[in-house]
Amino acid sequence: MAFQGKKLINNPNDVVTEFIEGLAETYPGVQYLDGFPEVKVVLRADVSSATYDKVAVISGGGSGHEPAHAGFVGEGMLTAAICGEVFASPQVDSILAGIRAVTGPKGCILIVKNYTGDRLNFGLAAEQAKSEGYKVETVIVGDDCALPPPRGIAGRRGLAGTILVHKVAGAAAASGLSLDEVAAEAKCASEMVGTMGVALSVCTLPGQVTSDRLGPGKMELGLGIHGEPGAAVVDLQPVEVVVSYVLKQILSPETNYVPITRGNRVVLMVNGLGATPVMELMIAAGKAVPQLQLEHGLAVDRVYTGSFMTSLDMAGFSISIMKADEAILQWLDAATKAPFWPAGIDGNRPPAKIPVQLPLNHLMNNDESIGRPLQLSKQGQILEVCIEAAANAVIDLRDSLNEWDSKVGDGDCGSTMYRGATAILEDMKKYYPLNDAVETVNEIGSSVRRVMGGTSGIIYNIFCKAAHAQLKANSQSAVTSKQWAEALEASIAAVSKYGGASAGYRTLLDALIPASAVLQERLNAGDDPFTAFVLSSEAALAGAESTRHMQAQVVFFFNFF
Amino acid sequence: MAFQGKKLINNPNDVVTEFIEGLAETYPGVQYLDGFPEVKVVLRADVSSATYDKVAVISGGGSGHEPAHAGFVGEGMLTAAICGEVFASPQVDSILAGIRAVTGPKGCILIVKNYTGDRLNFGLAAEQAKSEGYKVETVIVGDDCALPPPRGIAGRRGLAGTILVHKVAGAAAASGLSLDEVAAEAKCASEMVGTMGVALSVCTLPGQVTSDRLGPGKMELGLGIHGEPGAAVVDLQPVEVVVSYVLKQILSPETNYVPITRGNRVVLMVNGLGATPVMELMIAAGKAVPQLQLEHGLAVDRVYTGSFMTSLDMAGFSISIMKADEAILQWLDAATKAPFWPAGIDGNRPPAKIPVQLPLNHLMNNDESIGRPLQLSKQGQILEVCIEAAANAVIDLRDSLNEWDSKVGDGDCGSTMYRGATAILEDMKKYYPLNDAVETVNEIGSSVRRVMGGTSGIIYNIFCKAAHAQLKANSQSAVTSKQWAEALEASIAAVSKYGGASAGYRTLLDALIPASAVLQERLNAGDDPFTAFVLSSEAALAGAESTRHMQAQVVFFFNFF
Repeated sequence: MAFQGKKLINNPNDVVTEFIEGLAETYPGVQYLDGFPEVKVVLRADVSSATYDKVAVISGGGSGHEPAHAGFVGEGMLTAAICGEVFASPQVDSILAGIRAVTGPKGCILIVKNYTGDRLNFGLAAEQAKSEGYKVETVIVGDDCALPPPRGIAGRRGLAGTILVHKVAGAAAASGLSLDEVAAEAKCASEMVGTMGVALSVCTLPGQVTSDRLGPGKMELGLGIHGEPGAAVVDLQPVEVVVSYVLKQILSPETNYVPITRGNRVVLMVNGLGATPVMELMIAAGKAVPQLQLEHGLAVDRVYTGSFMTSLDMAGFSISIMKADEAILQWLDAATKAPFWPAGIDGNRPPAKIPVQLPLNHLMNNDESIGRPLQLSKQGQILEVCIEAAANAVIDLRDSLNEWDSKVGDGDCGSTMYRGATAILEDMKKYYPLNDAVETVNEIGSSVRRVMGGTSGIIYNIFCKAAHAQLKANSQSAVTSKQWAEALEASIAAVSKYGGASAGYRTLLDALIPASAVLQERLNAGDDPFTAFVLSSEAALAGAESTRHMQAQVVFFFNFF
Repeated sequence: MAFQGKKLINNPNDVVTEFIEGLAETYPGVQYLDGFPEVKVVLRADVSSATYDKVAVISGGGSGHEPAHAGFVGEGMLTAAICGEVFASPQVDSILAGIRAVTGPKGCILIVKNYTGDRLNFGLAAEQAKSEGYKVETVIVGDDCALPPPRGIAGRRGLAGTILVHKVAGAAAASGLSLDEVAAEAKCASEMVGTMGVALSVCTLPGQVTSDRLGPGKMELGLGIHGEPGAAVVDLQPVEVVVSYVLKQILSPETNYVPITRGNRVVLMVNGLGATPVMELMIAAGKAVPQLQLEHGLAVDRVYTGSFMTSLDMAGFSISIMKADEAILQWLDAATKAPFWPAGIDGNRPPAKIPVQLPLNHLMNNDESIGRPLQLSKQGQILEVCIEAAANAVIDLRDSLNEWDSKVGDGDCGSTMYRGATAILEDMKKYYPLNDAVETVNEIGSSVRRVMGGTSGIIYNIFCKAAHAQLKANSQSAVTSKQWAEALEASIAAVSKYGGASAGYRTLLDALIPASAVLQERLNAGDDPFTAFVLSSEAALAGAESTRHMQAQVVFFFNFF
């Protein structure tokens, strides 16, 4: 079952340089060095080493983690990002080129995720840059909480918590602090954050075969961002359970990876791994916040939900928890032009969000005392007989309508109409104001919509509502034949407007339009109302028959019949 | 092979309300109405109908398109978003609640994607709201360019171009325009935009079975955002080709869906469909811009790349092209607090981005005239003999090292070391400045890194660079035994620092550390240098032997031996 992973790319060897080109096309504030394919450095378009008077903040590493790191280049965050090939540490010469391009007299800080390759390459570049006269500090981030100590020589891996360290360092640098001070802030932040990941699928490298390491119904806990196998493969659980497990791991007092205890303030990052929809990330965030508050006794001061540090097309997320104090919150809230740093998170939040009360219908006309009169007027009696006859006709047609519908649709048209007709008969007995024909029309619409649901309920409700509005504007409690004809015309116009159909679209309008025309024509010609209505209904039948040979314009409109 | 789609969710019926809760936890500026599960309305936390003095901009539709529509709620964009269940139009009562919650005396505009359900539900809500006294205008967006006209009753579907219409309407409303004016701007924008989608996979509804409609190596063109089948299924192509096809379809003079001709200015949106990595979206954007410029003769004024209007977990993207003039660009550039509107796109861009020139190494010390002297000094001769002996010893060990490495690694350690040793011998003959031992050490590092590559090349280069720095700081051209011993100590410290290992980690340090200790000890004790070096090398051997029974701390460090 192995097959090549499907990706919207060109040559798999060019994915990183082409990504950088697209990033630069998208963001005017981002530039790159003219050193492709060896040197892949993204930098702020407005910074030059010759004139830069702040500490430069540089990060990077293997690619495949987009938007990290290049998407975080911008004032207030990274000054430059050094991009390696996919999941491969960047070359020393590339790192050196980045350092030289943006580092001014205040020096630069290198923020490095804790992987041996990155440590060595950034380390050698740092030593070389120092020998060229640059001031350089290096901060290693290892925020992984998946495996218990000891982790040996490799140590804890650098994961999405690194993005928070970037932000802290970037804000500190932008504020004008010295290299030592920026490095101290970054180092402090790196010691405050813990991260753990969960995946539903393994990522596929460009041009490679898709792995089937994880089967259906399985998920992996504690994996790395390069597709490294996780600490455990388990059955897929509700995300609430997954979040609970992950939070407990990160905050475990046994590993003591992050110095967070009850009563502390924290920030939360829910980070998508590349192929995780925003819906799922938000659901996880919505479950994590109350768990942190109620089960762990923590105040959650900020929530960052999105895809920040990914693993190509991996489905899953990581959760990072960072201990927060006023200083860290200030750095996190500080303005930045980095395109992928999430907007609108800053500012204090209440401990719990109370939803806004539902607004009332300020007309409240549905609550006026409408009900079936104790005594029916003459017209009320006629109206009741008419409604009964029409509803019973629809009820009798249930099976036929279902059969016809099954040839072109899902075969439930008759049942849906039956529900509507039955509800009309029931509601009429209970509360239709039958002596007031105008309001009764409105109530028919409500009955239909309540039980028919979906699109057909709406269409018939629009039909009734438009008739009601027309009748209300023009008639008293006794409605003339002409007024009924005008109401039918208004209903047809409304259904056509919102439904988008007109004559010849093979919809219910092909019966209604000739019926309306004949009705008006006969009444205007002076025919007695009874004859006019009979001729009108015959025109409706003929119109319905005519749809036999029409081309359907849209399938789901059939269901309205 | 059908199996239930894997998602990080809880009850599939709760995905929309739980998404909204997570969104509200993440963004302090976003609120929701207390009407779950029927009423699912996200609104600006700072807007109340009682006091709102701008035109309210309301949109919505079925869920499953996150971040649309709720992620675009914020000052300058949407005032409220009405969320239906996944791929189902919201209920009329929900829409009405949203209208009532945010609409002040200036009225509201409903921006509706052209689907029959949305038209009918928003239409009925609009009629009801009008009867309650609200001013309401409705703009329908149908930007789909996948199928040729005529499209019949359903018309062109509303796709990602709707987001651009939201932005235009939101900015126009924020500027204080009247309802008629805002509606005119939105309608104009809706007529200027065309969109077409491409997918590599079909989306899976929460709790449903994954479809295998698309097989390996296939892609679908012109599909909708609800998993509707596309216009064609074709073999997967390079994204450059896909982009070219899509742009031609959108800009086709036959369908004439968008009024864009050569010489026009446009904005481009590359929209991920839910499971598409940022890397791939950026690659597509990077290819689309030059094609629009060169093949279609258009000026590309803005590029929006990201996931804005998705289809759950579908892999693929849509491309939208909107004709732009100064007015539209001004609305698109206007500030907004909507969390998912992309930052950093505004402002004029040059017609083409010229990459920044590579910075030079401003010390240039590698270019100073270094080369093999015509005449070797006494010390130069000794140095050459020593280097030759060491290199040849490594060369002779190739097969043994490979064999040992194959037991724990990939069996190439001997070959890698052989490459390094051979390069040293060759380079030494060509240009090592052998009379200057200090610079020769530096050159050895460069030779090794050039041919050994990877992590081991870096480690040996760090080793040589640290020795070089130490020697340079403390010695003249003639290096004493004591200075060599100090250089070895400095090298060990650097390798330990950047590599993260120390004694007992079963790495090369277990040989080097005792060798260094013995060397210093013997020299300090007054032994003659020759004896001291021999004893030191014996300590190295003993140290290497001692690793036999050690537990490896990290596998890939073995390769350094």
